[in-house]
Amino acid sequence: MNKLGVHALVWTGGWSHDEAARAIGSSAELGFDIIEIPALDPRGIDIEFTAKKLEENGIGTTISLGLDASTDVSSTDKTIVARGEERLNDALNVAIGIGATHMCGILYSAFQKYMEPPTETGIANSVEVLQRICETAAKHDITIGLEVVNRYESNVINTAEQAVAMCRRIGAPNVKVHLDTYHMNIEEADNARAIRETGDDLGYFHIGESHRGYLGSGNVDFTKMFRALAEIDYQHPITFESFSSVVTGQPLTGILGIWRNLWDDGADLCRHAQEYIRTEMKSAKENVAGRGTAAV
Amino acid sequence: MNKLGVHALVWTGGWSHDEAARAIGSSAELGFDIIEIPALDPRGIDIEFTAKKLEENGIGTTISLGLDASTDVSSTDKTIVARGEERLNDALNVAIGIGATHMCGILYSAFQKYMEPPTETGIANSVEVLQRICETAAKHDITIGLEVVNRYESNVINTAEQAVAMCRRIGAPNVKVHLDTYHMNIEEADNARAIRETGDDLGYFHIGESHRGYLGSGNVDFTKMFRALAEIDYQHPITFESFSSVVTGQPLTGILGIWRNLWDDGADLCRHAQEYIRTEMKSAKENVAGRGTAAV
Amino acid sequence: MNKLGVHALVWTGGWSHDEAARAIGSSAELGFDIIEIPALDPRGIDIEFTAKKLEENGIGTTISLGLDASTDVSSTDKTIVARGEERLNDALNVAIGIGATHMCGILYSAFQKYMEPPTETGIANSVEVLQRICETAAKHDITIGLEVVNRYESNVINTAEQAVAMCRRIGAPNVKVHLDTYHMNIEEADNARAIRETGDDLGYFHIGESHRGYLGSGNVDFTKMFRALAEIDYQHPITFESFSSVVTGQPLTGILGIWRNLWDDGADLCRHAQEYIRTEMKSAKENVAGRGTAAV
Amino acid sequence: MNKLGVHALVWTGGWSHDEAARAIGSSAELGFDIIEIPALDPRGIDIEFTAKKLEENGIGTTISLGLDASTDVSSTDKTIVARGEERLNDALNVAIGIGATHMCGILYSAFQKYMEPPTETGIANSVEVLQRICETAAKHDITIGLEVVNRYESNVINTAEQAVAMCRRIGAPNVKVHLDTYHMNIEEADNARAIRETGDDLGYFHIGESHRGYLGSGNVDFTKMFRALAEIDYQHPITFESFSSVVTGQPLTGILGIWRNLWDDGADLCRHAQEYIRTEMKSAKENVAGRGTAAV
Repeated sequence: MNKLGVHALVWTGGWSHDEAARAIGSSAELGFDIIEIPALDPRGIDIEFTAKKLEENGIGTTISLGLDASTDVSSTDKTIVARGEERLNDALNVAIGIGATHMCGILYSAFQKYMEPPTETGIANSVEVLQRICETAAKHDITIGLEVVNRYESNVINTAEQAVAMCRRIGAPNVKVHLDTYHMNIEEADNARAIRETGDDLGYFHIGESHRGYLGSGNVDFTKMFRALAEIDYQHPITFESFSSVVTGQPLTGILGIWRNLWDDGADLCRHAQEYIRTEMKSAKENVAGRGTAAV
Repeated sequence: MNKLGVHALVWTGGWSHDEAARAIGSSAELGFDIIEIPALDPRGIDIEFTAKKLEENGIGTTISLGLDASTDVSSTDKTIVARGEERLNDALNVAIGIGATHMCGILYSAFQKYMEPPTETGIANSVEVLQRICETAAKHDITIGLEVVNRYESNVINTAEQAVAMCRRIGAPNVKVHLDTYHMNIEEADNARAIRETGDDLGYFHIGESHRGYLGSGNVDFTKMFRALAEIDYQHPITFESFSSVVTGQPLTGILGIWRNLWDDGADLCRHAQEYIRTEMKSAKENVAGRGTAAV
Repeated sequence: MNKLGVHALVWTGGWSHDEAARAIGSSAELGFDIIEIPALDPRGIDIEFTAKKLEENGIGTTISLGLDASTDVSSTDKTIVARGEERLNDALNVAIGIGATHMCGILYSAFQKYMEPPTETGIANSVEVLQRICETAAKHDITIGLEVVNRYESNVINTAEQAVAMCRRIGAPNVKVHLDTYHMNIEEADNARAIRETGDDLGYFHIGESHRGYLGSGNVDFTKMFRALAEIDYQHPITFESFSSVVTGQPLTGILGIWRNLWDDGADLCRHAQEYIRTEMKSAKENVAGRGTAAV
Repeated sequence: MNKLGVHALVWTGGWSHDEAARAIGSSAELGFDIIEIPALDPRGIDIEFTAKKLEENGIGTTISLGLDASTDVSSTDKTIVARGEERLNDALNVAIGIGATHMCGILYSAFQKYMEPPTETGIANSVEVLQRICETAAKHDITIGLEVVNRYESNVINTAEQAVAMCRRIGAPNVKVHLDTYHMNIEEADNARAIRETGDDLGYFHIGESHRGYLGSGNVDFTKMFRALAEIDYQHPITFESFSSVVTGQPLTGILGIWRNLWDDGADLCRHAQEYIRTEMKSAKENVAGRGTAAV
C-alpha cells in the first residue's frame, strides 16, 4: 500500500511552533503516513522543533517548494540562478534535518505566470543546478521530484513527457517525476496514459480536484487515474492537496489564485480524502486484478 | 443519510436457519442498515425465525423477487396470472411478517429472457394484479418497487421512463420505481438523467457494477449517478448487489448467467462497497452543494 | 485508415435478391468500405448474386453468424457438434464464394442464453472444430473472428482475455479476437485496457452503443476506446452495428431482445455513425500523437 | 441548429487587410456560420474593410476582447475604470460597424492573473459600466456575453453561477453568460450541471479542449456537455477556439501561456472541429430525444 500524505497547507499557512505542532498533530491524528511541509521560505522553518514534533507524532515527512522570480534557476541571469541554487540548498538542508524522504515541487523554475517561453540557456542552467542538488540529496537518500504544473505556474515543465525528458537530461538516479492531478487535468492529453508512460519515473503523486475542493466533487476522472497507478504498480507516496484562502493567507492566496473557497472544515475534508483514496485504490486494484478468465 | 442495504445473495443462496442467521448476522456486523432478502420461493422462508434474527441483530429488511414463467402476471393466460398473484401475495405475506419496508424486483413479469414482445393484454393483467398488491401492501406501509431490468431479464420494463409510466397506470401512492445501476448501464440512454427524471418516483436503488464485481472496478460511471441522487435529494435505501456462483448455486447461477466470479471474499467485498457508497455520496453532496459563488 | 463497415441488419432482416441489392447498394452509397452480411442461414444466401452485387457496387464484405442449440459446437453431443461444423463450413463456403475477408461471430457456441456453465469437453469440441475451420479459411485468406459476447448470448467467451486464451488453444495464425463495444460495456472490467491487452490478437471490431442506438447517445465511453485502438495502431475493420425490430423481424427480434426502437431512419443512423467513427478516430490519433514535449 | 463559429486566432494573430481577408475567407470556405474577431485593440480594426469582407464571404460575426490592467473596469481607480469604459465603447463601435451579433469576453475585468481578490467597489464599478454598455448594445441588437474564465485570467467571474449573479446585478435583457469548455474544465464542479443551471441565461458558447488542441483529444467530457446543451435546447452560437503560438505571436502567446503547440494545420484542425461539433451535437439530440418508452 502506498503511503498517504497530506499537504500542511490544509491546516496552516505558516510554520510557527504552534502552527507546526497543530499541522503535524492533526495529520497524524487522521492516520496519514506523511505530512508534506511547504518550504517556500526554508530559513523560516525551525528544523529541530519540526523534527521533534514529527517524531513525537510518529509521522513521516516530505517537503515541497516553488522558486520565485528572484531565485529562478531557469533564468539566464547567473546571479538569479545562483540565488536559486542557494534557496534549493536551504530547502534541502531542511529536508535532511527533518528526515524528509522527498523534496518536490517547482524546483526547476519560478512558480509564476511567465510571459515568455523558456530559453535553452535557462533550461541548461536549471539542469546543472538540479544535477548538483540531486547529488547532495542522494547522500541522504532523498528523492528529488520535479512537479509537473500547468502553464500558469511555469513555462518549463507542463507535461509528464517533458518531466521525463528533464529527468533524462539531469541523469541522476534520484530525480523523479512528480505528477499532480489538478495540473494534469489542464495539461495532459490523457491523464491515465501519462501515468502509464511515466511508469517507473513516477516518484511522487499529488492528488487534488480540478477546482481543488473535496475529492470526487469536480471534473477529474480519478477512477481512470487510480487504475493507471495500479497498472504501473506505483509504490510511492500519494499526497492530498487542497487549498482554502481561510488557511493559506497572502501571498499564497494570490499566487494560487484562490478566489472562492470550497471547504471550511479541513479535518472533514482530509478524512474524506483519505477514505476516498483508499477506497478508489482498492477498486483500481480489483480492476487490474484480471479476473476475466473462466471457462476457456 | 440514505439507509444502506446489502443483498443476502452476497452471503448465501438458500434460507435455512443457519443460512438466514449467517446472512443477517454478517450484514449487521458490517454495519448495514438493511438486508434485502430474496423471496423467489416465499413459502420456503421461515417468517418467525427470520423476524427474530432481524430483531436480535437490530437490522431492517426489504424483500425482492422475480416471477417465473409459471407465475408470469404479464401473461395472457388467466391461470398463470392468477398463480402470479398468489406468488406475489405469498411474498407480501413474508414482507409483512418480517417487517419489510419494501417489496421489490421483477414483480410485473417473469424474470427471464423473452422471445416475443409483451402484449397489451398481458400488461393490463400485470397492472391489475399490482393494483391489488399495492392496496394490501399500503395497509402495512410497504412500498412496492418495480425493478427496471435489462432486455434479457424482462420485456416489459427496461427503462426508468417505462417504469414511471407503469407506476402511473397502476396509480397507487406506494408503487415506486426501483432502479439498478447494473441494468441502467445496459438500457438507459443517460444514467444520470434517468435518475433525475424519475425524481420523486424513485423509491429503491440497487447499486451494482457493470460486471457485478467490486464497485468502481467496472464500467459504471458512479460519480455521475451519485450526483444525480444528490440532486434529487434521494432519501430511500441504496442496496448493494453482487453475485458469485460460489454463493448463488443453481438455478440462480444459470438464471443470472454467472459464468465467472469476480470475488471470493464476500465480507471484503461488502465492506468496500459500503465505504465506496458513503465516500462517493459525500463527494456528490459536496458537488451539488453549490459553492460556485464568491465575489459577485 | 481502418476500413469502415456496416452490418446488413441495419437495412434488412432477409437476403432475397431485392433485400441483398438494397443492403449492398445503400452501404456503398453511404461510402462504407465493407458490408457485413449475417449468415445465420448460410444456404439461404445466393452466393453468385451477392458476389455480383458486391462487385457492381465496389464494396468489400465480411460475414458473421452465431450457431444455435442444434448446431452448438460447444455441446458434448457429437451429433450436435458435427451439425455445427457443417453449418460453419456452409458459412465458410459463402464467405469464400462472395470474397469475404473475415468470418466472425459466435462461431464457438450457440447464440443463446445458457442455463449451465460450459463444460471442458464442450470447449474441447469447439476448439477442434475451429482448428479445422481455420485451416480451410486460411487457404482462402479468410480471418476467423471469435466474437466476445455478453453472458446472455454465450457462456463460453464473455471477455477479451478469454478470447485470447481461446485463440491460443486453437493455435491457428488466422484466428483472431472480435470485440464489440456493446458487449464490452457489460462484461469487461476496463474497455480500453481490454483493447490494449488484446493488441495484435484483435482482428475485427464491432462498434455499437450500450442500447444499440445512435453512436454517442448511450453509455459507452467511445473516446477511451478509440484511443486504445489508436494506441495499438489497430488496422483492421471497424463495423457499425445497430438493431431495430422494424428491420430485423422475428426470430431475430426475439433472440436479440429488441423491445424498443431507437431509430427509424437507417440511412441517417449510418451516415452519422460513419462521421462519428471518422471524427473520433481522428481525435484519438491526435491524442496519442504525443505532442507533450516542448521546451526541455 | 446552432450557428457554428470559429475564432479568428486560429488563422491569424493580427488584423491587417491581408490577415482579415484570409481569416474571413478561410472560415467561410470551411462552412462556418460565424467568425469571432478578437478586438483587444479595437481601433486597430478597419471596420469598413472588415464589414465588406464579411459580406463578400457571406459569413456572420461576433467580437471578443479582454480588458487589460490599464483599462480594468473592476478597478477601484476611477481613471482606469473610465479608460475601460472607453475601450468597451470602442469595441462596441466595431461590433456595430461590422454587424456583430455578440460582443463577448472578459469585459468585466482585466484579462490577467490577479494577485488579490476583487473588491466590492471594483465589482460595483464593473456593473455600472456594463449597464451602460448593455444599453448601447441593445439599440443595435447586440448581445453582451460575460465570459467565465479560469482563476488565472480573472478574479471576478470563474463560474457560471457567478456569471448568472453578475447578469442579475447588471439587470439588462441583453446581457448573457458566455461559457467556455476550456475554463469550465478548471473551475466548474460539474460542467453539465453548470450548463443546465445557466439555462436561458446562456447566450454564447466557446468550445475548446482542456489543452486547447484538437477537440476530443484532451480531458474535456464533451459528450456530457453536448447533452446538457441539448437538454436546455441551446439555440445560440457555438464557437471553436484553439491556439498555437505559430499563429498568435506575442504578446498573446505570453498572455495565454502557449508553451507548446498541439497543431500546425489550422484548416485541418477547424474542419475536424466542425465535424466533431455537428456529430456530437446530433448524438446529444438523439440522447435527449427520449426513446425510453415502449410496451407500457
